[in-house]
Amino acid sequence: MSGAAGKGGKGSNLRSERERQAPGGSAAVSRFRARYAETDAMGIVHHASYLVWFEVGRTDLLRQLGASYTAFEAAGLRSPVVEMDVKYRSPARYDDPIRVVTRLAETGPARVRFLYSVYREEAPDNLTLLVTGASTHCFLDVSGRPVALRSLPEELRRPLEAATQDSGSGR
Amino acid sequence: MSGAAGKGGKGSNLRSERERQAPGGSAAVSRFRARYAETDAMGIVHHASYLVWFEVGRTDLLRQLGASYTAFEAAGLRSPVVEMDVKYRSPARYDDPIRVVTRLAETGPARVRFLYSVYREEAPDNLTLLVTGASTHCFLDVSGRPVALRSLPEELRRPLEAATQDSGSGR
Amino acid sequence: MSGAAGKGGKGSNLRSERERQAPGGSAAVSRFRARYAETDAMGIVHHASYLVWFEVGRTDLLRQLGASYTAFEAAGLRSPVVEMDVKYRSPARYDDPIRVVTRLAETGPARVRFLYSVYREEAPDNLTLLVTGASTHCFLDVSGRPVALRSLPEELRRPLEAATQDSGSGR
Amino acid sequence: MSGAAGKGGKGSNLRSERERQAPGGSAAVSRFRARYAETDAMGIVHHASYLVWFEVGRTDLLRQLGASYTAFEAAGLRSPVVEMDVKYRSPARYDDPIRVVTRLAETGPARVRFLYSVYREEAPDNLTLLVTGASTHCFLDVSGRPVALRSLPEELRRPLEAATQDSGSGR
Repeated sequence: MSGAAGKGGKGSNLRSERERQAPGGSAAVSRFRARYAETDAMGIVHHASYLVWFEVGRTDLLRQLGASYTAFEAAGLRSPVVEMDVKYRSPARYDDPIRVVTRLAETGPARVRFLYSVYREEAPDNLTLLVTGASTHCFLDVSGRPVALRSLPEELRRPLEAATQDSGSGR
Repeated sequence: MSGAAGKGGKGSNLRSERERQAPGGSAAVSRFRARYAETDAMGIVHHASYLVWFEVGRTDLLRQLGASYTAFEAAGLRSPVVEMDVKYRSPARYDDPIRVVTRLAETGPARVRFLYSVYREEAPDNLTLLVTGASTHCFLDVSGRPVALRSLPEELRRPLEAATQDSGSGR
Repeated sequence: MSGAAGKGGKGSNLRSERERQAPGGSAAVSRFRARYAETDAMGIVHHASYLVWFEVGRTDLLRQLGASYTAFEAAGLRSPVVEMDVKYRSPARYDDPIRVVTRLAETGPARVRFLYSVYREEAPDNLTLLVTGASTHCFLDVSGRPVALRSLPEELRRPLEAATQDSGSGR
Repeated sequence: MSGAAGKGGKGSNLRSERERQAPGGSAAVSRFRARYAETDAMGIVHHASYLVWFEVGRTDLLRQLGASYTAFEAAGLRSPVVEMDVKYRSPARYDDPIRVVTRLAETGPARVRFLYSVYREEAPDNLTLLVTGASTHCFLDVSGRPVALRSLPEELRRPLEAATQDSGSGR
C-alpha cells in the first residue's frame, strides 16, 4: 500500500520469513481474476475479499493433497478458522489476474496452520506480491466437540501430516 | 475479556491485555442482527463477515468522534487497511443479536489502529464474546501517496488524537 | 423489462402498481446504513447487495408476523428463493441511511411472494425510492421435498395467510 | 428448485425459449468452482451469489468481444444494472464445478441485455441447469448522464452490435 510496508515482514505477525518463503513442500497455486463485486468504493478489492481468496487456495490445496474439504464434511467434520492474520501491501483491482499460493505451514496436536501469498500476475514470470496471510484451524465433530489431529480418519490425517513435513516446518 | 477463551492472549497477536481491556476512552457500540447471507454451509457466520462488521464499528466510531469516513473521502483521503488480525472464539449464527464494540487503540505518525470486540447479546447484560480483532490503517491522498497524521485536516486529525488519548494508549 | 425505467412500472415484472403500493396489510420497515463492503468500484452499492437487504426485510417481516425464519428452520423447513426480480432506479452510496419496506404479496398453494421497496431516508418524511424487487419462495422439508402451504405447522401457516389477506392480494 | 420449476419457462420472465437457447451468436463460457463463502446456512449457494457469477460471465463475454469492461471504465463510462431477473431451478453446493454461459441478447437505443445460464458441470457433456437470469444495463458518462449506444466510442459500440446481430435478436 506504500513504502515501508513493502519492505517485508518488519513487525510482521507472520511468524518468520522462512515460513513465508518455504520453497519446498506442497503448495497449491490458484488462479482467477478479481471480480467486480469484490471491489469497493475505493476502487480496489475490498480487504475482506482476500479471506475468500485464501479459502479458495485452501480448498485447492486440500484437494491436491487428496484430503478435500468436502471429504472432511462427508466424514462429519468441520474445520473452522480460529485465527486469521493478514498483511495488505498493495491493492488488487477489478479484473486483475490473481495468483494465490497456499501452503500448509504446520500441524499441532489439534490445529493446522495455512499460509497464503496473493500476487497480481502481470505475466507468468512477473508477479507482484499484494497480500500475505495466515490462518489457524481446529477440527470439530458433528456435535461441535474438538477432534485431535491424530483422531482424524487416516485418509484425511496422513496427507496433512505429509504436507507439513514436506514444507519443513512440522513439529 | 471474559470466559475461558479470554484467559490469555497467550500467543495472541493483539498486542497486550492492556490494549484489549482499555476501559476508558471513546468506544462505539454498533448493534444489528446476523444476516442469512453472512452465514455459510457450516451453519455459522462466515469468518470473513466479521471484517465487514468491524467496518460497521469503525464507521460508527468515526461518526461518533465527529470525523466520519465520508468526511475523509470528501477531503480526498482514503484510509485503507494495512494489517488485520482476528481471533475467533465462538461462532455467531443467523439472526443472533450482535454487538460490536470499537475503540481507537493508538495513533502512530502515519497510522491508526482500531480494536474490535464482537458479542452475541443474549440480553442487555448478558454478552458472549465471539470474536476480537485489530486493524491498522494508513492514510493516502488522491494520488495514492501516504499522508502523515499531523498533515490531516485539523477537523479530522484532532478527534483521532483525542480519542486515542482518552483510551490511554496514545503515544 | 425495458422502456423508461423511471416512469414507473410500465412493462414492469412487478405484477401491478396495486401490488407495489398496497397501503394496508402487514409491512415491515427495516432501517440500517449502507456498508462500505457493499459498495463497488463504481462508488455505489453493488447490485447484488440489495438481495441481501431484501433478506433483512424478509427476516424482519417474518419475525413481526410471529413466524420467524428461525422457527421455520427449527421445524425442519427451508424456504429457498425460486424467483427474484429487481428494478434499480437510483443508486445507494456508502453510509446512506436505508429503509427497506417488505410486504407479503400473496401465497399460492406452495409458494409465497414478497415485495420490497428500498429507500434512501434523507429525513423521516423525505424518502427517495432506489430499488424495488419481488421474490418467490417455496417450502422444502429436511429431505428437500416440496411442502404445500396448507401442510405447514399451523403456527407458521396462519401468520402468512393472515398477512396476505391483510394486503388484499391473497387468493 | 424442483419438479415443475424445471419444466422450463412456463411463466418465465425470460422472454422466450428462443432467447434462452439461441444456439449461434457470441457466447462466453466461464468455469470455476463454487466457493465456501458463497454458501449459506441452508448448505447451498446463497441466491445473491449468482448475480456475482453473472458478472463474471459478463466480464468474460465483454473481454472476448474485444470491448472489456475495463476499457469502458477507461473511457469514462459506467454500465450499471437497471434490471435483473433470476430463476432458481436447482441449488449449487460448495465446490461444485460451475459453468456460466453468457450471451448478449439485444441492444436497444440506450441499453443492452445479457442472458445467463448457470450449470453444474458433472462432466464436460453432462450439465445440469441450475439458474437462469437476465440483466439490463444502461451506459452513463463520468457525470452520471445516460449515453446512447450510438454515442459510445466505436471500438466499444461495434463489438456489442455485432454480438447482438450474431445472436439473431438484435433490433
